[in-house]
Amino acid sequence: IADVSPIGDFDLAAVYVSDAQYNRNIFFDTTPQAIRLYLLYNHWGLQILVYAFILVDLALAIFEDPAVVPLPIWVTSVIELVCLAAFTARLVHYAKVIPRERFWKDPKNICIFAIILLSLVDMIIYGALKASGFYAVRWSRVLRPLLLVNITEGRQLRRAFRSIRNALPQILYVFLLFMFSVLMFSLMALKLFGKRGLKTIEGRPYFTNYLEIVFDLYVLVTTANSPDIMMPAYNFSVYFAVFFITYILINTYIFMSVFLAVVYNNYKKYLKEEVRKLVRAKRHKMVRAFGVLQERKGEGEPVVSQACWNQLVRLVQPDISNAHRELLWSVSDDNNKGCIGKVAFVQLADLLNIQVIMMKSRPHPLKTWLPSLYLSSPSRLVCRMVQHKAFMYTYDLIILVNAVFIGLDEEDPLIANVEWAFLVLYLLEILLKLYSFEPRAFFSRHQFWNCDLSKYNIQLNCPFLSILDIVFILRILRLIRVVDNIKRFRAIINTLIKIGPTILTFGQLIVVVYYIFAMVGMELFKGKIRFFEANSTDPDKAFCGNPLLKNSVFAKHNYCKNNFNNVVSSFILLLELTVVNQWHDILFKAWENTDIKMFFVLFHIVVVIIIINIFIAFVLEAFFVEYTVDQSNLQSSLEKKIEELELGLSACFLPGYKTVDGLLQRMFEADLDPEDFADDEDFDPNNPSNLNFPNPNFDSV
Amino acid sequence: IADVSPIGDFDLAAVYVSDAQYNRNIFFDTTPQAIRLYLLYNHWGLQILVYAFILVDLALAIFEDPAVVPLPIWVTSVIELVCLAAFTARLVHYAKVIPRERFWKDPKNICIFAIILLSLVDMIIYGALKASGFYAVRWSRVLRPLLLVNITEGRQLRRAFRSIRNALPQILYVFLLFMFSVLMFSLMALKLFGKRGLKTIEGRPYFTNYLEIVFDLYVLVTTANSPDIMMPAYNFSVYFAVFFITYILINTYIFMSVFLAVVYNNYKKYLKEEVRKLVRAKRHKMVRAFGVLQERKGEGEPVVSQACWNQLVRLVQPDISNAHRELLWSVSDDNNKGCIGKVAFVQLADLLNIQVIMMKSRPHPLKTWLPSLYLSSPSRLVCRMVQHKAFMYTYDLIILVNAVFIGLDEEDPLIANVEWAFLVLYLLEILLKLYSFEPRAFFSRHQFWNCDLSKYNIQLNCPFLSILDIVFILRILRLIRVVDNIKRFRAIINTLIKIGPTILTFGQLIVVVYYIFAMVGMELFKGKIRFFEANSTDPDKAFCGNPLLKNSVFAKHNYCKNNFNNVVSSFILLLELTVVNQWHDILFKAWENTDIKMFFVLFHIVVVIIIINIFIAFVLEAFFVEYTVDQSNLQSSLEKKIEELELGLSACFLPGYKTVDGLLQRMFEADLDPEDFADDEDFDPNNPSNLNFPNPNFDSV
Repeated sequence: IADVSPIGDFDLAAVYVSDAQYNRNIFFDTTPQAIRLYLLYNHWGLQILVYAFILVDLALAIFEDPAVVPLPIWVTSVIELVCLAAFTARLVHYAKVIPRERFWKDPKNICIFAIILLSLVDMIIYGALKASGFYAVRWSRVLRPLLLVNITEGRQLRRAFRSIRNALPQILYVFLLFMFSVLMFSLMALKLFGKRGLKTIEGRPYFTNYLEIVFDLYVLVTTANSPDIMMPAYNFSVYFAVFFITYILINTYIFMSVFLAVVYNNYKKYLKEEVRKLVRAKRHKMVRAFGVLQERKGEGEPVVSQACWNQLVRLVQPDISNAHRELLWSVSDDNNKGCIGKVAFVQLADLLNIQVIMMKSRPHPLKTWLPSLYLSSPSRLVCRMVQHKAFMYTYDLIILVNAVFIGLDEEDPLIANVEWAFLVLYLLEILLKLYSFEPRAFFSRHQFWNCDLSKYNIQLNCPFLSILDIVFILRILRLIRVVDNIKRFRAIINTLIKIGPTILTFGQLIVVVYYIFAMVGMELFKGKIRFFEANSTDPDKAFCGNPLLKNSVFAKHNYCKNNFNNVVSSFILLLELTVVNQWHDILFKAWENTDIKMFFVLFHIVVVIIIINIFIAFVLEAFFVEYTVDQSNLQSSLEKKIEELELGLSACFLPGYKTVDGLLQRMFEADLDPEDFADDEDFDPNNPSNLNFPNPNFDSV
Repeated sequence: IADVSPIGDFDLAAVYVSDAQYNRNIFFDTTPQAIRLYLLYNHWGLQILVYAFILVDLALAIFEDPAVVPLPIWVTSVIELVCLAAFTARLVHYAKVIPRERFWKDPKNICIFAIILLSLVDMIIYGALKASGFYAVRWSRVLRPLLLVNITEGRQLRRAFRSIRNALPQILYVFLLFMFSVLMFSLMALKLFGKRGLKTIEGRPYFTNYLEIVFDLYVLVTTANSPDIMMPAYNFSVYFAVFFITYILINTYIFMSVFLAVVYNNYKKYLKEEVRKLVRAKRHKMVRAFGVLQERKGEGEPVVSQACWNQLVRLVQPDISNAHRELLWSVSDDNNKGCIGKVAFVQLADLLNIQVIMMKSRPHPLKTWLPSLYLSSPSRLVCRMVQHKAFMYTYDLIILVNAVFIGLDEEDPLIANVEWAFLVLYLLEILLKLYSFEPRAFFSRHQFWNCDLSKYNIQLNCPFLSILDIVFILRILRLIRVVDNIKRFRAIINTLIKIGPTILTFGQLIVVVYYIFAMVGMELFKGKIRFFEANSTDPDKAFCGNPLLKNSVFAKHNYCKNNFNNVVSSFILLLELTVVNQWHDILFKAWENTDIKMFFVLFHIVVVIIIINIFIAFVLEAFFVEYTVDQSNLQSSLEKKIEELELGLSACFLPGYKTVDGLLQRMFEADLDPEDFADDEDFDPNNPSNLNFPNPNFDSV
């Protein structure tokens, strides 16, 4: 009775499932040729290649003027042209995959197109101006990080930017109120302190210029100039401290908390909405895949047979083991009917995203080769000993003692020799464990802790950071193993590891913002401050090569390397500004004009008030999820199944998800209706390209 | 058919309702005599008196050695004895109210008893030692702030402390992990930088002593020594910056967020549990009150008649207006039956806690006295003009212009005269509004904004802070009125006002902790640093009277007034440490031994990591409630009733609650079952003193 689906249908269904699995929302043509092109477009190799080209493009800042490692203009230009060609090729490929009218409607394609075009124009203008000896600026470099946002793979990043953009109005209201409060307090400060003839430590008049007061009090919100800003008034009269205490309470504590509250609340609200859309889109794609493969058995509901399903899974994930696939099937087909309905089929995308390591628990190879020796009573004693908890504790203790020795003076030859003894002990541990555990089980369980290089004390001396240093660090990292053995700590560490991938999204967000600020900063401030090596005897060293900095805090604190002279030091300077402390000293006198203050205040608002708060909000939310929910429903039903089936398998779940969306989806799982297939009633399996596909609108930033 | 309850029953019921209203959980005797004593105990006058005595007791630190204003020992001792006598009297009063075995089971009574006893012992020892010329310490002063926690009225404070205590284990685990990370990074830092012979700006060896590294990196978590701590390594090689960036990312950003997450999560969890208990206890008390007053009409459910209810409300709140009382009744008796059942009766406590201002909308007095004049067309024009929005905007503009003039130089006689013009304008505004609005409505609506003293430029010159200064500040506060007129801002401001009362609880919490640290700090460090007035010519001034501070950052930054020489400067110093910035400079070299570091690290953990995070958690939660829920159910049903009844009343709800618990209860309203009367089935109205009263356990800290 069942119609066997043609091969082409399987390809299409596999693409739908794979899109659902990775939350791709691309509206592709469904002709077999277009599907093949689309599969190529999504090939991991090409994706990595695109990221590599973006990385090279961004890294060009290291070689362009002002450069860390100067290269001739023609070299960097050629590299940039190659990169641009690669982006163009990728864009053309994308245009072949999706219908033309769709291509030009999508703002992110237009964005990439514009970036490529503007970069070319900029390169031509720059080359022409330079050739004729004029001053020229490579302004298009500011656009480069936007590529990260607008490529098809930058989904998470786009989502983060959208969340920020949506939260902006609310943040703005609080910010205006906050600025109003700062302005009002500044007015009070002017009236209270302006006329008293007080002086700051540097001998400047204290609180006499309104705009300077506003800036100083803004800095006080970041706590960077506390208590210095208060001291002249406080030294004058203790009552004036009340002013500053009130200010700090209202603006530093209450308003900053309100910022966090507003950012948190809005971020959560919009993210929830996005995740809801995402899950609906995912279900739709799965319903489409189901529609392609479905068969009707008699009068019943349409179903997908196990054979079909197997072929599909093999297509979607060619490297899946048979045992793993059977496990997933038995979770889907809970009642052993040999076929599954729509609801069970839709789960597949999520099931494939749970990382399961399947291992046949097989006997130790020695047991097979030398059973008499391996099963003798001394050998058994060794195995029991190694498997005993005391063995683990002993080695924890050894690692701790080792840590103490690492801390001790290494010049002492005795201690250097003790280090060799520890090495022998660690080797012994590995051998003993290999002896008593099945090797594959041992390696998969300890893959993280045994991989450290600490056992190989390679003696190589680089000028600054030797491999020896890295080995030291790795040896110290071994201490983590001790902590990880304690259950309470492991729970916290696991949560930290789980939020790891999403921190990468924030990392990209930060890189985009930093890169833009660094490019602008470099054009504005390059060469204003010079750094002199420690052994330099140049008299300019005392003021970082800038006479304005004579006797300044900046020069006294040896801040000369905090400058915009190249992209690396710019990034580190921006990081210091993110940490906020001393930022007024870092920027204050060094940069001639006062417009620079706006540059830094803007940076503070964007990075500290918005992005860092979103980061905190994310960590908070992730921890709450970890504290309240223990495992997702699918994970626990998978585990139950493994126990039920007694498959002779030991499956272990890795903490973490294959995709970042996994964590997001879990965050809002409670709010998602598992049976919500929305408007899939009007979905026609014969025409999957109908236009009601409820794509979340993925516009660019 | 209905039995009329005797007078004594009303007293008892009123006490129950009042206890429910203010969330008092005191197990009192129910004899008429004990009830009278209990009513006296709860009299607001006595409560204020107790707080006044505690305030005096705490304020004694100002007069005791090391004193701000020195007083002879016998004076402070006599005052303290009077305070102790007052506390004893209060305790004895309490003992008379509740059963004896209950009294001695309650840890907070034992606590107060112990504090009184220990204070007496300490005073005797101190007096004896001083008289014989020995060195003596008033150690019992540390105990004084605990009175705030343990008096019957300190419910909110006890609850806050309990929440902290319950969250401690979780915080401890994260803290241990965090300290482990700091220790590990310190070990790495020792290995990476220790051998390179680097120097700090002060010329000390850089990162050579393990314990000092731990401390420095702990300070880096608070960002106080960023980027100084990094500069020597960064100047040496740019690669070393990676170490600090990793450290800041992990320990400053991730771990500090995790602390907030853990504190937030636990605080919320336990607070929810407490509020649940509180609401149940409140309902129980109301059920008891109902049990005392209930009548049976035929076969139906027991009810309370309107007459009974009226008498009860009049007893509970003697100052309630008839209109207000009728309004509350009509909300309770929604169907106009003339009597209410248990569920409606139980609401009473919450209804009484909603602040309603009742105003008869009556005609303007001028309309009654001079109708022909007041209703003439010019007079009407004036009224329409004043009531028009443009009038408000005009005055907003005037206030803004005034603000600009305030900012301008006042020496100029022209500007001083312009100020008089503004004064006239403000007076005109008040007169016009009094003319066109009914005076009572005007005053109640504008009570806040019209109360500022700004209209009276009293010319009094104190040495430091003149009344003129205060007038200036108040004039600037008028600007708030402008912002408050914008709807978006008002929502935020209202939320801030609503969380105001609870911030007072945190204020008390902070005072308790600060006081204890100040007392300990004063004993340990008094007199180590001296402050010299600006006109002093003492050569010791350059190093704050402590040779150890020669050429230190502390002396250079004029930090001499940051000392423990008296209770006021101790508090300000502790506040600076709470703000965290520069704390290592404030404490580092000034205090001889390194034990002081422990004192400050402990302070940081207690105040910044725990209390400030709880404060932030509270603000977050309060804002979420405000963003999601608009009004409590009771408030909206009250409003609906007012509209329905067209009572000829205009009621206005004040933002805020009569009790702090109101906000807390609303926070968790969604999670509370409105019909949950728990085990009130086994409640016997004839024996209200049965022992299953589900009191939340109110143990002391």
